[in-house]
Amino acid sequence: MASRPNLVVGQSGGPTAVINNSLVGVIHQALEENAIGGIYGMLHGIAGVLNEEFVDLRQESAETLERLRNTPASALGTVRRKLKPEDYDKLVDVFVKYDIGYFLYIGGNDSMDTVYQVSRMAERRGVDLRVIGLPKTIDNDLAMTDHCPGFGSAARFVASAVRNSGLDTRSMGPDGPIKLVEIMGRNAGWLAAAAALAKEDESDPPHLIYLPERPVSREQIVDDVKATLDRYGYCVASVSEGIVDENGEAYAMPSGKVDAFGHEVKLGVIETVASVVEEAVRIRPRFDKPAYMQRSFAEMQSQVDREEAYQSGREGVRAAVAGASGKMIAFERLAGPEYAIAYRLQDLDQIANAEHVVPTEYINAAGNGVTQAFLDYARPLIGGPLAAYGKLAARAIPRR
Amino acid sequence: MASRPNLVVGQSGGPTAVINNSLVGVIHQALEENAIGGIYGMLHGIAGVLNEEFVDLRQESAETLERLRNTPASALGTVRRKLKPEDYDKLVDVFVKYDIGYFLYIGGNDSMDTVYQVSRMAERRGVDLRVIGLPKTIDNDLAMTDHCPGFGSAARFVASAVRNSGLDTRSMGPDGPIKLVEIMGRNAGWLAAAAALAKEDESDPPHLIYLPERPVSREQIVDDVKATLDRYGYCVASVSEGIVDENGEAYAMPSGKVDAFGHEVKLGVIETVASVVEEAVRIRPRFDKPAYMQRSFAEMQSQVDREEAYQSGREGVRAAVAGASGKMIAFERLAGPEYAIAYRLQDLDQIANAEHVVPTEYINAAGNGVTQAFLDYARPLIGGPLAAYGKLAARAIPRR
Repeated sequence: MASRPNLVVGQSGGPTAVINNSLVGVIHQALEENAIGGIYGMLHGIAGVLNEEFVDLRQESAETLERLRNTPASALGTVRRKLKPEDYDKLVDVFVKYDIGYFLYIGGNDSMDTVYQVSRMAERRGVDLRVIGLPKTIDNDLAMTDHCPGFGSAARFVASAVRNSGLDTRSMGPDGPIKLVEIMGRNAGWLAAAAALAKEDESDPPHLIYLPERPVSREQIVDDVKATLDRYGYCVASVSEGIVDENGEAYAMPSGKVDAFGHEVKLGVIETVASVVEEAVRIRPRFDKPAYMQRSFAEMQSQVDREEAYQSGREGVRAAVAGASGKMIAFERLAGPEYAIAYRLQDLDQIANAEHVVPTEYINAAGNGVTQAFLDYARPLIGGPLAAYGKLAARAIPRR
Repeated sequence: MASRPNLVVGQSGGPTAVINNSLVGVIHQALEENAIGGIYGMLHGIAGVLNEEFVDLRQESAETLERLRNTPASALGTVRRKLKPEDYDKLVDVFVKYDIGYFLYIGGNDSMDTVYQVSRMAERRGVDLRVIGLPKTIDNDLAMTDHCPGFGSAARFVASAVRNSGLDTRSMGPDGPIKLVEIMGRNAGWLAAAAALAKEDESDPPHLIYLPERPVSREQIVDDVKATLDRYGYCVASVSEGIVDENGEAYAMPSGKVDAFGHEVKLGVIETVASVVEEAVRIRPRFDKPAYMQRSFAEMQSQVDREEAYQSGREGVRAAVAGASGKMIAFERLAGPEYAIAYRLQDLDQIANAEHVVPTEYINAAGNGVTQAFLDYARPLIGGPLAAYGKLAARAIPRR
């Protein structure tokens, strides 16, 4: 390794509202480390390495870095790319060519696999490259960590958005009493579950939460909606995009139409669930698909999430300089009455390609909501309570 | 009229993020007026009058009222109901029965028509009922007023949401370079246009804005998207739900499917536009449908909008006590370097059922964006700039 090897950092996979905090944490810590020469950013993740597209992060102003902490999406650009075995050799070649001794990669499951493979390849070839993964995903599905940066902010957005849209539905009365909100998370329902965090009492929206982890039949959905309408006069449901029916089949209704590529057009999950409900209840549900807003709505950053993302970047650089490699910065929740976490190094081989789904004890018996244990787990992550809303006492004027 | 007649206030039509500010403005002013006896709220608008469902707003705590100012949706419940001619007689009957001398109604076009009809009926019958309309609509389509409470907050949400989701698209690079966002506004494109308010320079998202006021052909959409991709490498479009093609037809693609009621299922506007783009460009667009979040996302209240909604409620009560009836509280923008408005009484007959769409001078020549004149008009309404975001200078490291 050169006497002051260069560091390179990249961002990968779906962006989040705080992913640039991890980046800025890396840069701030690297600026303080004498062992580090150049501080490089790779454009669009490992694609930027293969294409040798690096930018000089030492030239960014302090003001730009501070603003990036408020800025959603991946400032360096991101990538989704399945690497071929020969790519790992190429990556290590480029790192050697550019005197890179430290490789920090901010990403989810697939990215941690990349980090793992690169660290093994470097080791096999006797290259002194220290590789550290920094966790990132709104889906919260990385193994071996209490939670993932990005989740808390997305959870805060979802809790608030479902509460807001749910109150809209409440105020509509019989003119539109059913609302479905489609929430991201193809295999893990953490985010759909987070909609429950804005509830103050049982009657508040959302009344129903469906997760990929618990198959739900069309009959159950219809029964749940009917029972909720009977009880509260309106019904708001947080529906994960990844829910499956009792046969393990996705909710995707064939539309009969064929697109330009000859593929059959299918209605999405929320349209399909809406159609199932409408057919049985004879009320047309309204629905929201906030889609990419869930992972990018920076005005709803969780202060806890923002700070943890930032600190994980700093921790990653410290660990690399101290000699660690092939590890991910994981979050361990400490015991005690106050929420606190410690940053730990976890072996990547236990993380790469594993998936941490919502455990059974966080899902209610009926499979249409969450338990207190989930609320206790998730509440600290969204960074303080949402704004206190008002509700009229609404004392009736006697009839004349 | 009784010596201290009662006042009744109601909310109607689609809720907004600040509609409860209008309500609280009414209550606060009514509490200060000795001429007013009871302060009643009607549940679900005029449905609450016909059903004689009133609540006592004098019994609400100061804390509840303060919290309601942060709370989206209609605290009294709302209604969409086309009244029959005989209903107006019934409404006046109920007002007489409950000694109601002041009727304040917060709503949009249809509600202003209701207010107008009630005031005419009361006059015809010689009933001393003072009827005042308070404007409310995120669509900003009421005539005879500079703008409408509710629009500024929805515009702030839309500007921010499209910026955030657009930055997400930018960071995806070639892995997902086209984003379409469906924005509310069936006949008026004010809100879709507001997406432009977050742009700092030409290259920022959104690159394309399509409004119901300007028909746009499939060919133009495809050409616009291709040109934007060529220029910036990605393309973000704000698409009003009400756009029509060159034949005046809505963008709603038949899916070939028939629903439970025998109606043909049609793909919505954003799915249809996505399909048109995908077929020509061979890239599958991503899209967001924030739907009801646009009118309920109270965390994005515009401070200007919030305050104006509140003051319009106070103004309405003052006007009624001073003897006005059959009028709406309108906003007149005052000349001068600083944004300022005055509250004016406008005749309802000029407002009821009229519609104020985006004028030609606010739409660019190509019909795919807005002009500086629109930005100058709309910018003060969103209540101050959005958070400053950062962008990397991204100075390239020389290739080795």
